[in-house]
Amino acid sequence: MPPGTLIYTGHRTENATQVYSVWYNEAEYHEREAYVPEWQNRPAGISWVDVRSLTDTALIERVGNALQLHPLALEDVLDTQQRPKLEEYDHGLFFILHGLHLDAEHLELVSEQIAVFMGPAFVVSFQEDPDDTLQAVRKRAQEGLGRTRKKGPDYLMYSILDIVIDHYYVVLDDIESALHELESELHSNGAQTSQKARIFELKRVTSQFRHRLLPLRDAVTRLYRSDCPYIDEANRPYLRDLSDHVAQILDSIDNYRELLSGVEGLYQAEIGNRLNNVMRLLTIISTIFIPLSFIAGVYGMNFDNMPELHWHYGYFFVLGIMLTASIGMLIYFRVQRWL
Amino acid sequence: MPPGTLIYTGHRTENATQVYSVWYNEAEYHEREAYVPEWQNRPAGISWVDVRSLTDTALIERVGNALQLHPLALEDVLDTQQRPKLEEYDHGLFFILHGLHLDAEHLELVSEQIAVFMGPAFVVSFQEDPDDTLQAVRKRAQEGLGRTRKKGPDYLMYSILDIVIDHYYVVLDDIESALHELESELHSNGAQTSQKARIFELKRVTSQFRHRLLPLRDAVTRLYRSDCPYIDEANRPYLRDLSDHVAQILDSIDNYRELLSGVEGLYQAEIGNRLNNVMRLLTIISTIFIPLSFIAGVYGMNFDNMPELHWHYGYFFVLGIMLTASIGMLIYFRVQRWL
Amino acid sequence: MPPGTLIYTGHRTENATQVYSVWYNEAEYHEREAYVPEWQNRPAGISWVDVRSLTDTALIERVGNALQLHPLALEDVLDTQQRPKLEEYDHGLFFILHGLHLDAEHLELVSEQIAVFMGPAFVVSFQEDPDDTLQAVRKRAQEGLGRTRKKGPDYLMYSILDIVIDHYYVVLDDIESALHELESELHSNGAQTSQKARIFELKRVTSQFRHRLLPLRDAVTRLYRSDCPYIDEANRPYLRDLSDHVAQILDSIDNYRELLSGVEGLYQAEIGNRLNNVMRLLTIISTIFIPLSFIAGVYGMNFDNMPELHWHYGYFFVLGIMLTASIGMLIYFRVQRWL
Amino acid sequence: MPPGTLIYTGHRTENATQVYSVWYNEAEYHEREAYVPEWQNRPAGISWVDVRSLTDTALIERVGNALQLHPLALEDVLDTQQRPKLEEYDHGLFFILHGLHLDAEHLELVSEQIAVFMGPAFVVSFQEDPDDTLQAVRKRAQEGLGRTRKKGPDYLMYSILDIVIDHYYVVLDDIESALHELESELHSNGAQTSQKARIFELKRVTSQFRHRLLPLRDAVTRLYRSDCPYIDEANRPYLRDLSDHVAQILDSIDNYRELLSGVEGLYQAEIGNRLNNVMRLLTIISTIFIPLSFIAGVYGMNFDNMPELHWHYGYFFVLGIMLTASIGMLIYFRVQRWL
Amino acid sequence: MPPGTLIYTGHRTENATQVYSVWYNEAEYHEREAYVPEWQNRPAGISWVDVRSLTDTALIERVGNALQLHPLALEDVLDTQQRPKLEEYDHGLFFILHGLHLDAEHLELVSEQIAVFMGPAFVVSFQEDPDDTLQAVRKRAQEGLGRTRKKGPDYLMYSILDIVIDHYYVVLDDIESALHELESELHSNGAQTSQKARIFELKRVTSQFRHRLLPLRDAVTRLYRSDCPYIDEANRPYLRDLSDHVAQILDSIDNYRELLSGVEGLYQAEIGNRLNNVMRLLTIISTIFIPLSFIAGVYGMNFDNMPELHWHYGYFFVLGIMLTASIGMLIYFRVQRWL
Repeated sequence: MPPGTLIYTGHRTENATQVYSVWYNEAEYHEREAYVPEWQNRPAGISWVDVRSLTDTALIERVGNALQLHPLALEDVLDTQQRPKLEEYDHGLFFILHGLHLDAEHLELVSEQIAVFMGPAFVVSFQEDPDDTLQAVRKRAQEGLGRTRKKGPDYLMYSILDIVIDHYYVVLDDIESALHELESELHSNGAQTSQKARIFELKRVTSQFRHRLLPLRDAVTRLYRSDCPYIDEANRPYLRDLSDHVAQILDSIDNYRELLSGVEGLYQAEIGNRLNNVMRLLTIISTIFIPLSFIAGVYGMNFDNMPELHWHYGYFFVLGIMLTASIGMLIYFRVQRWL
Repeated sequence: MPPGTLIYTGHRTENATQVYSVWYNEAEYHEREAYVPEWQNRPAGISWVDVRSLTDTALIERVGNALQLHPLALEDVLDTQQRPKLEEYDHGLFFILHGLHLDAEHLELVSEQIAVFMGPAFVVSFQEDPDDTLQAVRKRAQEGLGRTRKKGPDYLMYSILDIVIDHYYVVLDDIESALHELESELHSNGAQTSQKARIFELKRVTSQFRHRLLPLRDAVTRLYRSDCPYIDEANRPYLRDLSDHVAQILDSIDNYRELLSGVEGLYQAEIGNRLNNVMRLLTIISTIFIPLSFIAGVYGMNFDNMPELHWHYGYFFVLGIMLTASIGMLIYFRVQRWL
Repeated sequence: MPPGTLIYTGHRTENATQVYSVWYNEAEYHEREAYVPEWQNRPAGISWVDVRSLTDTALIERVGNALQLHPLALEDVLDTQQRPKLEEYDHGLFFILHGLHLDAEHLELVSEQIAVFMGPAFVVSFQEDPDDTLQAVRKRAQEGLGRTRKKGPDYLMYSILDIVIDHYYVVLDDIESALHELESELHSNGAQTSQKARIFELKRVTSQFRHRLLPLRDAVTRLYRSDCPYIDEANRPYLRDLSDHVAQILDSIDNYRELLSGVEGLYQAEIGNRLNNVMRLLTIISTIFIPLSFIAGVYGMNFDNMPELHWHYGYFFVLGIMLTASIGMLIYFRVQRWL
Repeated sequence: MPPGTLIYTGHRTENATQVYSVWYNEAEYHEREAYVPEWQNRPAGISWVDVRSLTDTALIERVGNALQLHPLALEDVLDTQQRPKLEEYDHGLFFILHGLHLDAEHLELVSEQIAVFMGPAFVVSFQEDPDDTLQAVRKRAQEGLGRTRKKGPDYLMYSILDIVIDHYYVVLDDIESALHELESELHSNGAQTSQKARIFELKRVTSQFRHRLLPLRDAVTRLYRSDCPYIDEANRPYLRDLSDHVAQILDSIDNYRELLSGVEGLYQAEIGNRLNNVMRLLTIISTIFIPLSFIAGVYGMNFDNMPELHWHYGYFFVLGIMLTASIGMLIYFRVQRWL
Repeated sequence: MPPGTLIYTGHRTENATQVYSVWYNEAEYHEREAYVPEWQNRPAGISWVDVRSLTDTALIERVGNALQLHPLALEDVLDTQQRPKLEEYDHGLFFILHGLHLDAEHLELVSEQIAVFMGPAFVVSFQEDPDDTLQAVRKRAQEGLGRTRKKGPDYLMYSILDIVIDHYYVVLDDIESALHELESELHSNGAQTSQKARIFELKRVTSQFRHRLLPLRDAVTRLYRSDCPYIDEANRPYLRDLSDHVAQILDSIDNYRELLSGVEGLYQAEIGNRLNNVMRLLTIISTIFIPLSFIAGVYGMNFDNMPELHWHYGYFFVLGIMLTASIGMLIYFRVQRWL
């Protein structure tokens, strides 16, 4: 395929693509479904075009043309395996990141790609899934809560990124509780083979999460430092705050990874300890009874001339020797701290 | 929640928020409880507003407004899981770090977030806990000891950071003594399963400590290099000293981590060694007695025609063979260094 | 050998070197086999000379001289173990990379070196193998599809690099499916010794792949940032896209490597678990039967005076003791969770 | 304590502090004990004040005041756990490093902190220990050997650092010989449990050594690149040489660390191998004799009707079977390479 | 010793130091043994003084003085444990690197230090060993082959470095073949204890090789970027090529190191697997025969009243039970995949 061909690579293809257009200023707020404003002919104020579910590539190409988005950026919107990134184009910024949640049953990270374009007085957002992750942002704009209506498209873009990144704390909490559950189970029930698989799954999830966040940190830091003319200086602290959040989440993940290594170490140690206990029991039993059995075997021999057999207290004498030997060995094991 | 909403995320919520205001210059020192000076209407000299216990978000918002602190910074003050950081705002610096001490019983790091704002002739500090970590600083200012009264707000900020960071040396000492105790116990009593858990806990604590210090080092270095106009050039060596202290603590932590790995290695080696000893004993006992028992078993068979049974010295001959075989095997084990 | 001597170090030496020349502009497209245009005397428009199979060093030297390529660069073209790299010469850029595919049977990475020179209005490409990896690019140019005919030699070079790098996704997919196969086999059949070798081979392949990509990432990033005058500013987003692709592939590889470590850990854990089970069975059997055998051995002794032997229910009494002891031990093992 | 309080943290407190003053130029050399020149009133030429043993903080404070040293630097001089560092003050440089030697018996690194101030025409050195590490430097100056008398204070500072760092090569040699001894013992005597502890100690020592050198490398490199006006351009190669030495020592340490890992690996492998041998012997003995004992047990049963017992050659037949079985098993073990 | 004292630290001290002087231009070539040209009075054209075997420190000091080399550089020439490095002096460049070859028998890296000075129209080279590593360079110059005679001293220096670095490929090939031999032996003969030592030696060699190359890469890169006026711009591509070669060799080494880790992993896995097999055999034999022996022991007891003993088919019945039990256990082991 020549570069720039639009192909949707996501796996959720049953839902129709929906386009919501919003335009607002400090005084007014309008909303219209299935309407794509033209670049040359935009409504006054700040426009926000939100596209959900990316199955209809033709419609998405039409949105891209109407709003003069770069074909390579549109291609990235549809390729849902993108790394988080910030790209600067001639008339705006393009940000890709992922909404994440943890499928607690299979301990898998479920990802929805979200792409945001920001230009002079307009924002375009593309959500991979049909359900609206950005609902709270639109609601706040609609009701005039917070600062959204008073500020420019950079604050709207920030609000979108913020709501997506805020949700990562939920994923963190889910990972933490899974980790704590594992730890307390290890404490109360001892090491189970099923735990090994859970440790592995948790490691995989934290590693995937980390792989998502490392490029996101770069992208957010570059956004905060961007000299794009559409970013208002007064809004920089918000972008810095975003960057702090990502760094904080990464810190927690690194922390969880070290905890996981520790839990794995404890698991291994208990398994090894258990093998030691098993071997110790085997050795104690064998060391006591094998020599005793040998003695019994000796006096079970059928030689004609075995004088001890005819002693009157021979049997009791041998029993006494056996008892003494086994008590001696028990004392030895006690001294060696094996018992 | 829209960004900038003030929510206290700490866990100590039973104490009322207290505000202490102090203002001083080289000649005078005044102190007043439960009083928040207004930005436009500050007392002459250097003002220091100290807030302890962060439960009353309304009061804290009032302090923030009175002293014109940025809403995002206030939000950070209340979110007590912040990473240590330095932020530069229009009229001042904002520093977040943590007072730390080691709960020696559970080997856990207990953290209290401390946030400091510094602007022209004023400092605002927020302590998460109701007890006053900064008492010594105020006392020195009150009694006119040291340089505090002769210098500006930058030196006051430095004194606050210094007293918090100085306390980290206590944590270091606690970790070191826990490590030494572990090492000497391992030497005297041998490896115990309880030690594995202690090694794990110590690793977790040093790792958490390190996670706190890495961003702190960056923040302190940036403070030392900051071109903020409220920092007096003559005070730079003090800030550099702070940065040296953090680097020194980090060095010690890295050192402890390597020592811990070494102790863990010794622990593993002793456990492995013990298993080897157990297996060796089992093998020696089995190798000696299993063949002997077999011989005894042979002469315990009830065949009609077993000529050896009727030899007069058959029994003693067999006993002699058994004795020779076991001595031979003992010599073999000796040569193999198993005994 | 003095530096600059041309020696072909590849292993495919049976095919004759072929030269295809193409020249085109937006309106026209010409193609001629076995023809090398002279630098001073090039056809109008953009020239593309494509050389396949590098066995004929004399012919390649002639191409190099005709198009004024640097002798060291020509030497690199023929040394097929080069690292991916970008070099800037006086009148153009020189890029080396490798076409890769996975030999799925032996899990080996097969590599074909591809070198591209780009100068004012001309591109020279050298393919190590006789089959044409770049066919799709020429076809698009010939049929006037895509943007190739409308753009300069930088876009042609980009198209060549893009088609080679796009093929890496196929290698990624092959590695992923090998990994999934391994994982599911481990799940269904348990750990097999053959899997250890497969894990090793997969590790080797991903490591080789990564070794190819790390310098390629640098080279592509430097290409994107190059200030070479023959790169049109409007084409930079395409080069950035290339760099994104390489970063994305590297991310996936790092991900696979962590998954492989996880799978290896699970493999080890199952092997260790199996050893534990074996030892446990041995211990249970021994612990139950060795003491019982000892009791039997005692009453197999031939002492004259053994009163129990003459008790009427002595045998049944001893059998009862044996039964009780073994049930007791079974209960003990049950409590210890060994059964 | 307020910052800048002088407290000596070293552990050698029994010796009195001694001050030696030296002043020289190309023609003359003077030396006077227990004399501290005043900054304003220094003798002509280059002054070198050398302080040994740091117990008398009052005297050291007097030296500091007389020579106008910064209070924070003086505090660092007395805190003997400093990291190696270079600090630039208004009228000079301040360098901290450590004299090191290896206590070969306990394999411990013994450290003496040495601090050097260098300003226009004067040098002040502080040695933690009473014995004079810098004797050779003063002797060369006194006798007019080498370049010391012809050059400025920067060369004197260089000579001091050089003599301290040169001594590190002795530590390196000691570590190397301990490592070689360990390796050859492992070769000749096989793995001993005492070796594990020695490996651990060597690892700790190399790690401590490395922790000292990493910041030293930075400090020396910064010294070499410093734009301090008191450094003569013609002396830069000497400072670069110093930096090379530290890099070379670090290289050797990294090399020893890898060798240590290798020795540890060999140790582990031999321990593992030994366990394998023990288990193999146990298995061979058990596998041969347990079945044979069973056969003997069968014919030791007391059933009335056991026809084989009455065969004339039954006993010899059974012995033959036993012999055949054990030879067969020996052949099997031979084929399996267990013998 | 004061810095700058000349001491030869190499171990080959039996050969006399030899000095060969060469001077040439595009037209002429002269050569004279045991002759050191004076700096002020050099022959016309490019002079190359080649010193072999460094035992005669007085002669080397004379060479240094005649050609005005810096005393510290001369000291480095004689200290044959230098790290590879490039140093820029006032009138020229100074490069240290090492000729390497692999002693295949002991798997040890044998190193010869080679130092090169390059100034305006002259080159001085010092070879640690008496045999001439640079023969091919002189021969090419003498016979006027290649570009040496047409170019300046920078090209001569390049040729010297190139011939030394080219030889590293031979070391690489030797390492690779040792690695392949190890791998194929592991495949065909299984894990042998001798292989562990070989893996360790190979690891040590690759690690030493890498330690040599890392600083060499820096030095070569700095040479390529050096703004030394004696480097002709037209020769930069040659220096870049040198830097590429070192990077390529480092890549191969990293690759071999990962392969070695893989081979080590396979070795460990086979050793572990073998232990598993041994334990499995022991467990199978014990689990089958210990219970059977117990049954035999029961009927070997001498109680008066044991009814089974008197049953006519008691013996055969018991034999049948034994047979059934052992077949049952064999089936169980088969199901558990232990057989």
